[in-house]
Amino acid sequence: MMCLSGRSVQCKQRPRKVLRGLYSCVLRLGSGFGIGTLETDPYCQWRRGWIGKLHSGEVLDRQCWAFSAVISPLKLQGKSLTMELDWIRYLAKILPRYPRLVVGIGDDAAVLDWGAGNYGVVAVDVVSDGADFCLREIDPALAGRKALAVNLSDLAAMAAQPVAAVVALGLPRQDARSLAERVYEGLLALAEDYQVAIAGGDTHVWDGPLFLAVTVLGLPGPGGIWRRDGAKPNDVILVTGSLGGSILGKHLHFRPRVREALYLAQNYEVHAAIDISDGLLLDLARVAEASGLAAEISLQAIPVDPAAERLSREKGTNRSPLEHALSDGEDYELILAVPPQEAQRMLKDPAVGVSLTAIGRFVEGEGLWHVEGNFRARLEPAGYVHGHSHQPFGK
Amino acid sequence: MMCLSGRSVQCKQRPRKVLRGLYSCVLRLGSGFGIGTLETDPYCQWRRGWIGKLHSGEVLDRQCWAFSAVISPLKLQGKSLTMELDWIRYLAKILPRYPRLVVGIGDDAAVLDWGAGNYGVVAVDVVSDGADFCLREIDPALAGRKALAVNLSDLAAMAAQPVAAVVALGLPRQDARSLAERVYEGLLALAEDYQVAIAGGDTHVWDGPLFLAVTVLGLPGPGGIWRRDGAKPNDVILVTGSLGGSILGKHLHFRPRVREALYLAQNYEVHAAIDISDGLLLDLARVAEASGLAAEISLQAIPVDPAAERLSREKGTNRSPLEHALSDGEDYELILAVPPQEAQRMLKDPAVGVSLTAIGRFVEGEGLWHVEGNFRARLEPAGYVHGHSHQPFGK
Repeated sequence: MMCLSGRSVQCKQRPRKVLRGLYSCVLRLGSGFGIGTLETDPYCQWRRGWIGKLHSGEVLDRQCWAFSAVISPLKLQGKSLTMELDWIRYLAKILPRYPRLVVGIGDDAAVLDWGAGNYGVVAVDVVSDGADFCLREIDPALAGRKALAVNLSDLAAMAAQPVAAVVALGLPRQDARSLAERVYEGLLALAEDYQVAIAGGDTHVWDGPLFLAVTVLGLPGPGGIWRRDGAKPNDVILVTGSLGGSILGKHLHFRPRVREALYLAQNYEVHAAIDISDGLLLDLARVAEASGLAAEISLQAIPVDPAAERLSREKGTNRSPLEHALSDGEDYELILAVPPQEAQRMLKDPAVGVSLTAIGRFVEGEGLWHVEGNFRARLEPAGYVHGHSHQPFGK
Repeated sequence: MMCLSGRSVQCKQRPRKVLRGLYSCVLRLGSGFGIGTLETDPYCQWRRGWIGKLHSGEVLDRQCWAFSAVISPLKLQGKSLTMELDWIRYLAKILPRYPRLVVGIGDDAAVLDWGAGNYGVVAVDVVSDGADFCLREIDPALAGRKALAVNLSDLAAMAAQPVAAVVALGLPRQDARSLAERVYEGLLALAEDYQVAIAGGDTHVWDGPLFLAVTVLGLPGPGGIWRRDGAKPNDVILVTGSLGGSILGKHLHFRPRVREALYLAQNYEVHAAIDISDGLLLDLARVAEASGLAAEISLQAIPVDPAAERLSREKGTNRSPLEHALSDGEDYELILAVPPQEAQRMLKDPAVGVSLTAIGRFVEGEGLWHVEGNFRARLEPAGYVHGHSHQPFGK
C-alpha cells in the first residue's frame, strides 16, 4: 500500500471493466482512500488510467500517477516475471527430452549435440514496441540493435561464440519499408562488431506493433559452456560492470559481454554464469536455486551504476540507488560463480576488459542472504515473489 | 478493373484517409462507377470498408464486397509478395558474407558451416492471427501446429533432417496462459511426430495479436542439401501431392514433406527443390530464375486438388480450379528438378510415400511457359508481377 499526499485533481473517467494487464495502486485522497489503476507500457510510460471505489469523491492524486508511471516498469516486470517463471516451469515439465538436446529450456541458451562431438548453442528473445523500447521516442536502429544485443548477452552467459542469427520481424504497416531499413541498420552494425552472419529471416507486415524475434546460433567457446547450475559451495560471486538505472539509456546501448566471457572461460575456471536481464537479485536467485545453494552477498559491495543514482535522485522513484542496482534489470552484465583462488587471479587481471566485483559467495542452504560481518538477513528477489520491488529487504 | 452488377445498398461510411494496406476495386453503380476499398485479414475475411469518389451517389455494390472478401487473400498475397521480394533482394545486397554462411538469405533455409565438415540448416517463419489464420475461427492448437509445419516444410525443401526448434510467442493479454497452452499442444504434437526437440523459446505477453516465430534447426540429410539454384536444362519438373484450395483447410492440416524429401534425396539425384508456399507458378519461377533457366509446363498435367474445385464452385471466386492450383499458395508440396531418367524411376517408386506428377521441364531461356504440343505461351507468375492473380495467362 502506498499512501501519498499531493495536489488532487478531478477524475474525468468513470471506472470500467478491466480487460488487460493493469498496474494498481492505493491512493490517499483527503480523508479517504481510493483504488487507482494504470495501464502502462513500461517504456512508453503510462497511457490510460482510471480510478474506482473512491471513498471521498472522484478525485485523483496526481503525485501518485507520476509515481506510478515511474515505478510501473518494475512492478509490471515483477508481474510478468512471475507468469514467465510459472510458464517456464510448466514447459520444462511437459517438453519431451531428446538425446540431441544437451541443455534445454531454463538456461540462458540451449545446447544441441550435432553429433561427432559437435555442439551448437541457440537462444531466442523477442523485443517489441512498448515492452522493450518506445518506438515513438527512439531511433528504430536502437530497437534493431537491442534485439540482437539481448540475444548475444544470452550467448555470453553460456561463454559461447556467436556465429549467426535469423531475424523474424513484425512491422506495422505504416512506413514499413523505411522502418525495416532503420531497424536492420542498427542490427547489422552490431552484427558486424561481433561477426555474426544474418543467415535468414522472415519479415511480416501486419496490424500489430513492431516486434523482433532474433534467434542466435553459436558454438561453444574454447573454454567450454557455462551453465546456471554448476555453482559450488564457497564459490565467489563476481559481477561484471556496474548495476542499476539501465532504463535511462543502458538498456539500448549496452555491450553484451561476449568477448569478456570467452576470455574468462578460456583462462579461468568458472562454475556457473547468468546474465543480468531481470535484476541482480532475481538472476542471482536463479543460479542459487539451479545449483541447490544459498547466495550470501554484501550490499555494501554492490557496484552501483551512476545511472541508478540519477534515476533515484532525478525521477523521484522513492527507491535508493542500491535498490535500483539490486533489482532494476536490463543491465546485461554477468554474474559468475568462481572458485576463490581463481576469483583472486581474475580480479587482478586487466585483460578481462571490464571491471569485476566480488559481491559475496555461494554456501550450503537456500535463498538469498545479506551478510555484513555477524549480521545475516534474508533478501527477497525483488519484484518476483510478492511484488515488493521497493522493499526487497526484511523478514 | 472489375465491373459487377448486383443489389445496391446505401453506404453508411464517409470516405476517409487511407492509412493502412487496403485492397481497392472499381464498382459499377447504376450508371456510374465508384471506388471501393476494403481492409482485410486474408484469413478473417473483411473487417472494415468504405467507398469514395462516387459518380452516382453513395451506393455500394454488395456483390462486390462479397467477391472482394473471397479474392482479397490472393490479391493481398500478391501485394505483400512484391514487397517481400523487393525486401529480400535489398537484404541480399546489403548483408555481408561470412565464411560460415554457406547458403544465406534467398533459399528456403540457410546452411551454416559449423567447422570440421559439419553443417547446420536453419529456417524461421512467422505466422500470426489475421495473416495466417483467424484465431476467432480455429482451435489455437492449429495455429501452433502451422507455425512449426511451415518451417518443417522449409527444411523438407532443403532435404534436411529436423532436429530442434525454438519458439518465440507473442500472446494477447486476455487468457494468455490458456491460449499459450493450446498453441503449444498443437505445436508439440507435430514436434513429436517429427522428433523435433523444443530447445527453448521466449513468451511475450503484449497488446498485439497472437504471433509465432518458430526457428527450426536441422542437419543435412544423408543425401545432401537441395538448393533452388541447381536445376539443369532438360530436368523434369515434378510436384508432390495436389494443388490449390488450401485455404479450405489444408493450410492448417498439411503434412510437411520431410520424410518424402529425405527418402528422395537419399535414393535419387535431385538438382533443385522448393516448397510451394506462395503458389506453384511463383515458386516455380523462383527455381527457374535462381537456376538461370526457363520452365515449361503443361497446364493439363497440373494435379488439381479437389479443394480447388470446391473453392471455385462453392465460393464463387471467379477463378477456375486450375487457376487456384497454379497460384493459391500454402500447398506446402514440393517442386523438384530431376534428371529425366531419375524422374522415370521416381514416378514408379511406391516407397516415395506421396503422389508425384511430372508437369514439365526446365530448358535454356528464362520465364515460365505453357507448352502443349506445338503451342507455347508465356505464363505470368500469378499475383506477383502486376497483381493479375485471376488472369495468370496471356502475353
